[in-house]
Amino acid sequence: MGIREIPLNKVRITDAFWSPRQRLMTDVTIPYMEKILRDQVPGAEKSHAVSNFRMAAGEETGEFYGMVFQDSDVAKWLEAAAYSLFLKPDKALENRVDEMVALIGRCQQEDGYLNTYFTVKEPENRWANLLECHELYCAGHMIEAGVALYEAAGKDELLQICIRLADHICRKFMQEEGIPGHQEIEIGLMRLYHATGNQKYRDMALRFLDLRGRDPEWFQRHTPAHPGIHYGGYDILPEDTAYNQSDVPVREQIAARGHAVRQLYMLTAMADAAADTGDKDMKAACNRVFDNITQRQMYVTGAVGATSYHEAFTTDYDLPSDRCYGETCASVAMTFFAHQMLSLQPDGRYADLMELELHNAALAGMQLDGKRFFYVNPLTVDACVSGIVPGYEHVLPQRPAWHACACCPPNLARLIASLSKYLWSEDDSTLYSHLFIGSEADTRWGKIALESRYPWEGSIRYRIISTEKPFTLAIRIPAYISDYRITINGRIWDAPSLRNGYCHLQKEWQPGDRIEITFDLPVRRIHAHPQVRDAAGKIAVARGPLIYCIENADHDTDVSSLMLAADKKILSLPYQHDLLGGVIPLSAQGYEIQAPNALYSTVPFMHSPVPITLIPYYAWGNREKGSMTVWIREK
Amino acid sequence: MGIREIPLNKVRITDAFWSPRQRLMTDVTIPYMEKILRDQVPGAEKSHAVSNFRMAAGEETGEFYGMVFQDSDVAKWLEAAAYSLFLKPDKALENRVDEMVALIGRCQQEDGYLNTYFTVKEPENRWANLLECHELYCAGHMIEAGVALYEAAGKDELLQICIRLADHICRKFMQEEGIPGHQEIEIGLMRLYHATGNQKYRDMALRFLDLRGRDPEWFQRHTPAHPGIHYGGYDILPEDTAYNQSDVPVREQIAARGHAVRQLYMLTAMADAAADTGDKDMKAACNRVFDNITQRQMYVTGAVGATSYHEAFTTDYDLPSDRCYGETCASVAMTFFAHQMLSLQPDGRYADLMELELHNAALAGMQLDGKRFFYVNPLTVDACVSGIVPGYEHVLPQRPAWHACACCPPNLARLIASLSKYLWSEDDSTLYSHLFIGSEADTRWGKIALESRYPWEGSIRYRIISTEKPFTLAIRIPAYISDYRITINGRIWDAPSLRNGYCHLQKEWQPGDRIEITFDLPVRRIHAHPQVRDAAGKIAVARGPLIYCIENADHDTDVSSLMLAADKKILSLPYQHDLLGGVIPLSAQGYEIQAPNALYSTVPFMHSPVPITLIPYYAWGNREKGSMTVWIREK
Repeated sequence: MGIREIPLNKVRITDAFWSPRQRLMTDVTIPYMEKILRDQVPGAEKSHAVSNFRMAAGEETGEFYGMVFQDSDVAKWLEAAAYSLFLKPDKALENRVDEMVALIGRCQQEDGYLNTYFTVKEPENRWANLLECHELYCAGHMIEAGVALYEAAGKDELLQICIRLADHICRKFMQEEGIPGHQEIEIGLMRLYHATGNQKYRDMALRFLDLRGRDPEWFQRHTPAHPGIHYGGYDILPEDTAYNQSDVPVREQIAARGHAVRQLYMLTAMADAAADTGDKDMKAACNRVFDNITQRQMYVTGAVGATSYHEAFTTDYDLPSDRCYGETCASVAMTFFAHQMLSLQPDGRYADLMELELHNAALAGMQLDGKRFFYVNPLTVDACVSGIVPGYEHVLPQRPAWHACACCPPNLARLIASLSKYLWSEDDSTLYSHLFIGSEADTRWGKIALESRYPWEGSIRYRIISTEKPFTLAIRIPAYISDYRITINGRIWDAPSLRNGYCHLQKEWQPGDRIEITFDLPVRRIHAHPQVRDAAGKIAVARGPLIYCIENADHDTDVSSLMLAADKKILSLPYQHDLLGGVIPLSAQGYEIQAPNALYSTVPFMHSPVPITLIPYYAWGNREKGSMTVWIREK
Repeated sequence: MGIREIPLNKVRITDAFWSPRQRLMTDVTIPYMEKILRDQVPGAEKSHAVSNFRMAAGEETGEFYGMVFQDSDVAKWLEAAAYSLFLKPDKALENRVDEMVALIGRCQQEDGYLNTYFTVKEPENRWANLLECHELYCAGHMIEAGVALYEAAGKDELLQICIRLADHICRKFMQEEGIPGHQEIEIGLMRLYHATGNQKYRDMALRFLDLRGRDPEWFQRHTPAHPGIHYGGYDILPEDTAYNQSDVPVREQIAARGHAVRQLYMLTAMADAAADTGDKDMKAACNRVFDNITQRQMYVTGAVGATSYHEAFTTDYDLPSDRCYGETCASVAMTFFAHQMLSLQPDGRYADLMELELHNAALAGMQLDGKRFFYVNPLTVDACVSGIVPGYEHVLPQRPAWHACACCPPNLARLIASLSKYLWSEDDSTLYSHLFIGSEADTRWGKIALESRYPWEGSIRYRIISTEKPFTLAIRIPAYISDYRITINGRIWDAPSLRNGYCHLQKEWQPGDRIEITFDLPVRRIHAHPQVRDAAGKIAVARGPLIYCIENADHDTDVSSLMLAADKKILSLPYQHDLLGGVIPLSAQGYEIQAPNALYSTVPFMHSPVPITLIPYYAWGNREKGSMTVWIREK
């Protein structure tokens, strides 16, 4: 048996940082999303997603409305609702979920086909345009929702619908060739395979992966002319094969290119498949692209996708901080990818990346109240430029109420609501703890609890509640920790063996055993590779897993005029309950440049000492509108 | 009498820096442009501009080809050719000019109308769409060519054609309302007024200026629907009134906005008109926008237009260096504007700006061999990104052979070939010397010669050749000079009076008098306002009027890894004849960052001392393809 996550329903999160955020999902975000889907929020962009299903079931009349992939909003909400039912049983929500699932069932065609756009609007064009029409993408999300409702809430009605849908897809695409225009079905099929044990679904996922990139001209030959119709809401050119990673066979990919979410969903499925099949070439490709992203193309916050043009990766070291894309969905997808990489090999780099995404780029996508979301996550915002000047229109200085293309909010909601499954894994000798998130896990090795005040404090306590067999407890030590101390039942454990980022503790564990790991959380100054143009002469500041930033809200001057003193220590302030939902801000000594009236000057500008306050990046944009930067000048 | 330039044909340039560049125009660029217009350059983008005229004259059959403003390429070439005939008489060229003018004459309609697109393709739509169709723009350029041929080459055939054209325009637009979609006719009409003395043309220019911005919805009401036709080759929306500065009455403008060349051509005409009429409000608007541009929106090289979207100004301090636009035409237009401001008031700031543009942003538009041109002039080029990555496609690392929209090469050619008229002005008491360019001028005060090795050396020698009346010699002292010495006939002149950037020397001059001004040219470090994001922690380096840069060609490492030592002096090297057409490079001590393999590191990167070579910015991109930057890190 390889390494496998401990499933969602075996892990309860009880964490001062994350539990309130999960409650935000169950109490605010998921109900709000449902209202959006039902067009019950006055002033918000019309969704029409539920109405599309009613029309497909013949129970409402009118026109299909929204993106060709509008169904996926319902699917992602159902997946999030499944996790919500696990986190907080709610009979009324369950009834509404049941109703929605029944409606979806009534939309399914005799042969298993399920898609409202092509049922309502173009039944003659089913499966005719895989490049643009997102039918496989929507199916993948629906299957994920079906599996989630089954695993998290014990409900199998949608799962059965999805099995019929997946069987339909297998019947068609095991015979014919087909390449998904937007990868996602591969993830869905792999999850369905894990849930049902039916290898057919894994084989179908593998076939989609295998065909991809074999014939880079496939989309050019198989995309029908359709003058005037923009299925995706924008032009996708069949010859732009890098956009959807169909330019190179998946096992030969060496660097991340093209649309970031497509790339990362594909990698997620590839890692899952490689772990299952032992396919070494596929594993090697996953590792190569993982390294390329994290060592060449990732923002220090974990954000990826340097350009708004096609929401895409660009090239090594091209990481503009003020007009980046860094889509929230891409950071969610980075978390999925890293999580699946852990099933390939337990390496701390993957857990480190999950931690980075969860605490920074992904979390920043959401307002602290759970009601507003960023699509784009910049590292530098100039209040006079961002959202206004051409080339910066996509970089908003504040989270908007809702998006016409509403992919990011439900993606973040399903990630946070299902956080339980990212915490622990096990193989036939070892229990792995990936994240310092307070929780109680029911494992094959017994019950274990974790308590911490992470990310604010470096004191993590494990407690063995029950156990019967000896096992190794492998605790991921974040790469940023240089020194730590482990005690077991209060006595220092002398010989911790650190392997691939995990400290392996081997012992005949007894119920009541207490393991404590203690480390400092000093403030770190991070330098970027000199080819990262926007970071030249600047530093980013981190404490523990959190990247910090400076905002105008804490200063009398625009943040562009602030410099950190290179020779002065940056200090952690006490935890502040009433600031930004509770944070540890940092305090630095620095300088304020006396902004001159001249644009250019041969006299270096005067500067005077000034205190500088840093806040966690995830919490930016929650006060007044103003400038913000992660990369800060140092003097 | 106000201050007036000494006309082109009274000034002969004899300058070690500029004379060879004028010869490049007469011997290489202007003949090459002519071949392009006649479609005689294999491999270059098809121009078809001369063929369009032949078709309009009924002497060739086929389809109109090119931009709706393709005629202006012929007009700008004719203007440049006029200056070429002045610089270097050439009977064969003169014959070809005569032929071309005769052809143009045969295209002119009975009523004076002249435009090949609307003669060949849509005669029924003459003057129907001022927003997009550029008829007034083409007319303005043709009139400039007509005046140039008259003034520089003593030929009046085109002038007569242009008078008939201008009369046609006056007949139509003195009665009806009309706002030019692209300002330029105003410049042409002002020049025609100066050349003929006929006030009607000035009044027409003033009417165009006066109507502009009075009614911001004018274009919305007067632009016909024309589905599928893109006259400008791109969409110009009638409601985007800031794009062509029709949002606010011209006298009320406070900042540069919208399309840079439109803005600057308008300001050029406004300054000319204000100087002629004494219109204080118009003068104040010119001054306000001049200050806004030079103190808020101008690159340190003189380039303007921060965004490729609409080739436009954006907002204060938004000056990205790696994806700027900085169109060569806009720097040429800045020179025109500054030159006209000198007719409003003799202020050294205007001559300083002409000098900055001529030696940097404008000159960089041309390859040293005069054969290739930049449209876009970045201040930072990353060879892996520029011209490749989305958002940077327009920023080419090397000058291309020709452009489909060929506005920049002829614009630069007509500027350099007519440089004589930018050097000297006079009013009823004073002779103004604006630029230290070696020349002999025939003024109302007598003949005077200027000799210098500028921009390389700070030793400028004036010689009075002949004079009859006493006059003041006012020599512009560049703002960057802190200390200078003036001698007259070898004796120190003790009391130079510096007023508005001009040193006024009042004396009964005698033939043979020699005035010498001597100053050092130390290397200057220039700092940018802290809100200029890309320049934070960096400096630009200048010597005399020249901005310098660093290129990969002079270094073993990518320029992004180089830092200048803040505490070490940057030295001027001896003049090198064989480097980049002859330059004084600079030598600095600096550091090379040891580029790490990691993208991010908490350990500051190692760096080692390294010599750094700087070259004049105008000469960049003339060797191998590689990275370049004007803003350089300092440590």
